[in-house]
Amino acid sequence: MTKQMNIGLLGFGTVGTGVLQIIQDHQDKLAHQLGCGVSIKKILVNDLNKERQVKVTPEQLTLDPQEVLDNPDIDVIVEVMGGIEDARSYIRHALENGKHVITANKDLMAVHGSELLQLADKQGCDLFYEASVAGGIPILRTLVEGLASDRITKIMGIVNGTTNYILTKMTKEGRLFDEVLQEAQALGYAESDPTADVEGLDAARKISILGTLGFSMNLDLDDVSVKGITKVTTQDLNYADQLGYTMKLVGIANRSGDKVEVSVQPTLIPHEHPLASVDDEYNAVYVYGEAVGETMFYGPGAGQLPTATAIVSDLVEVLKNKRLGVNGNSVVIPQFNKKLQTDDEIFSKYFLRIHAKDVPGTFSVLTTLFDEQGVSLEKILQVPLNQGKLAEIILVTHAVTKKNYETVIEKLNDIDVVVEVKSSYRVEGEMKK
Amino acid sequence: MTKQMNIGLLGFGTVGTGVLQIIQDHQDKLAHQLGCGVSIKKILVNDLNKERQVKVTPEQLTLDPQEVLDNPDIDVIVEVMGGIEDARSYIRHALENGKHVITANKDLMAVHGSELLQLADKQGCDLFYEASVAGGIPILRTLVEGLASDRITKIMGIVNGTTNYILTKMTKEGRLFDEVLQEAQALGYAESDPTADVEGLDAARKISILGTLGFSMNLDLDDVSVKGITKVTTQDLNYADQLGYTMKLVGIANRSGDKVEVSVQPTLIPHEHPLASVDDEYNAVYVYGEAVGETMFYGPGAGQLPTATAIVSDLVEVLKNKRLGVNGNSVVIPQFNKKLQTDDEIFSKYFLRIHAKDVPGTFSVLTTLFDEQGVSLEKILQVPLNQGKLAEIILVTHAVTKKNYETVIEKLNDIDVVVEVKSSYRVEGEMKK
Repeated sequence: MTKQMNIGLLGFGTVGTGVLQIIQDHQDKLAHQLGCGVSIKKILVNDLNKERQVKVTPEQLTLDPQEVLDNPDIDVIVEVMGGIEDARSYIRHALENGKHVITANKDLMAVHGSELLQLADKQGCDLFYEASVAGGIPILRTLVEGLASDRITKIMGIVNGTTNYILTKMTKEGRLFDEVLQEAQALGYAESDPTADVEGLDAARKISILGTLGFSMNLDLDDVSVKGITKVTTQDLNYADQLGYTMKLVGIANRSGDKVEVSVQPTLIPHEHPLASVDDEYNAVYVYGEAVGETMFYGPGAGQLPTATAIVSDLVEVLKNKRLGVNGNSVVIPQFNKKLQTDDEIFSKYFLRIHAKDVPGTFSVLTTLFDEQGVSLEKILQVPLNQGKLAEIILVTHAVTKKNYETVIEKLNDIDVVVEVKSSYRVEGEMKK
Repeated sequence: MTKQMNIGLLGFGTVGTGVLQIIQDHQDKLAHQLGCGVSIKKILVNDLNKERQVKVTPEQLTLDPQEVLDNPDIDVIVEVMGGIEDARSYIRHALENGKHVITANKDLMAVHGSELLQLADKQGCDLFYEASVAGGIPILRTLVEGLASDRITKIMGIVNGTTNYILTKMTKEGRLFDEVLQEAQALGYAESDPTADVEGLDAARKISILGTLGFSMNLDLDDVSVKGITKVTTQDLNYADQLGYTMKLVGIANRSGDKVEVSVQPTLIPHEHPLASVDDEYNAVYVYGEAVGETMFYGPGAGQLPTATAIVSDLVEVLKNKRLGVNGNSVVIPQFNKKLQTDDEIFSKYFLRIHAKDVPGTFSVLTTLFDEQGVSLEKILQVPLNQGKLAEIILVTHAVTKKNYETVIEKLNDIDVVVEVKSSYRVEGEMKK
């Protein structure tokens, strides 16, 4: 029987409280798995006197980060305080002191992950962050271990619960974006400043983390092309549905040869695709591996206990490694140089909705333009508008390069018969016949 | 750099060939992960002269199991020959020789898993079997590691591709069981003797393995109550659909307190439940954990490369453990005594379809019978048959004990107004409003 293992917590909000709760409730199970006890030795808080939902002693709480980070009794630091700069400097400090680190901080990992992982590697320390992406889904471990012998070529993730909740309600209840957003805020599914969620930034951070692991290539947030859901209309959702698609905010990491592309955007997915039925605040990550084919992992993306559970899973791994004396060996440093696809290498299908004058020749003007850019059409739907003065035209293209598609969009705006390009979305997944 | 690691293969059919192929194709990646090379040293075959799809030398092949099992150069045995008795004795022999074992053999693990795991534990050897359940889904590792700090209370698995293919076609195309079975046989999705699949035995083996791991309790095949899909009719599927359900063959492992229940049967699942959209030959395992809530893992259940990939993932784990000197530590021996729920402790909802005489008082006779057994009804659908001489009555009950429900079924058969109990299925999952 090894001695007791001691944990230092940075932050004691919802998730930190959950971690303490799970460790208290599972003492027996953890001891059985690890061969030693686990306790939370010190917790960095903002307020020593705040009332807590769980049992803690005054000696456990501190306002001074050094009492946690420099404490010789503490083996592992769990960072659940959020934010970037302080968290980064505390984690660096902890690693430099030879302590293992677990973080739930996707913002930090998306921006400084590379630097921190290299420091951990150098120090022979573990640095795990399963909780940072899709808290309730053990997707990082799965990417690293489960598919170890496969070559992953595509990752598509519904990794933001707020936007998935909003799109689900808009789709199923025909309601407007603003209205559903307000409801989501009232229910606590969306923050009072929802920008990072609805503009796709939160999803971008997560897909950059997933892509980095899946392709073993250091992908930064700047490498992710991002578009949010604020301009999605119920018309778009209705036409998408008529054509057999469901709209989701999807983070996509795509590999072709040794070059990759990473993006987040509202994306149309065939109804029968497994991602299409991931509803409400749930998350799911779809992975395509050359050997395994299609797999998908579904679960809660956030929440106190899912996130805390992911942290405790990491903790179990750190402590197992520690008992075996192999910490640091499982830190995954990207092994390939980053090569990004250019716009003439990114292929995908698109959904396009335009308003055009309903006059003879309109369609041939359009098709000529598409032909010039090598864009062929898979689906066409035309509906009269304004007593027939206008036509609403909805098109789904075959796969085309991003460059050619964007040229088409640009030129459409200059053509006389086109009144307005209303909306344009990426389309992923194959329809079954 | 450690020396080369050597593998012995037992069996060289589709999956064995896939394992060899993956190891040949991923030499660099494996060497990077493991810090040593990997090679297939010896392969037990039935025929030395058969033409092979992959490159092997005559020295690699042998007809003599001892050349593999007793070979001092071989570190790990991969059993992909199938069958029970020979496989069992070879694996015992290998473990007794201190060799680590990986098997894809669900039949063997469902029947002799406990004995073999104990032997592995005693010998300090690894014995992994990820490929035995839902080949393309790393579900066993997820149950053991990812949810390590959670308490799993329910596992529901679509774990047989053949029956899922058949039910999908019957549901979506309104076709008959026999017809779709023949098609599945022609396409190679069903075996010429499909009994083990369509009668639910294959799924029963897998759910007993999942339940054993998820509940850490040694569940045998005999503990699984099994019902296949041969009697499912298109009428049943249509009525289920009208009431908002999709039918799937589901293996269920359910825990309440410290007692469990394990079964396989055609089960009605609400359309919006994540299991309901798992179609064709795909598999999925839904897990409910008290902390994490709902998660689901989706992927191919079989196939050469998915199964071979799962085996190679196990191999990576064995070889990592070997390099670290910790083999045998991750063998999971059930830690709780088995306690099975009795029929008056198994609660679930049911779908029931009966033909009754369409005469005054029929419904009150029925409701009196249900009341007596404490069965209340959630949904009722009545349709006239035979120009109104008969009524087709479809009922969905609220949760009821298996004992009371079976009493109802028994008594229904004795009641004069009831012409025939046409079908009865378990119902799982909550409908959203």
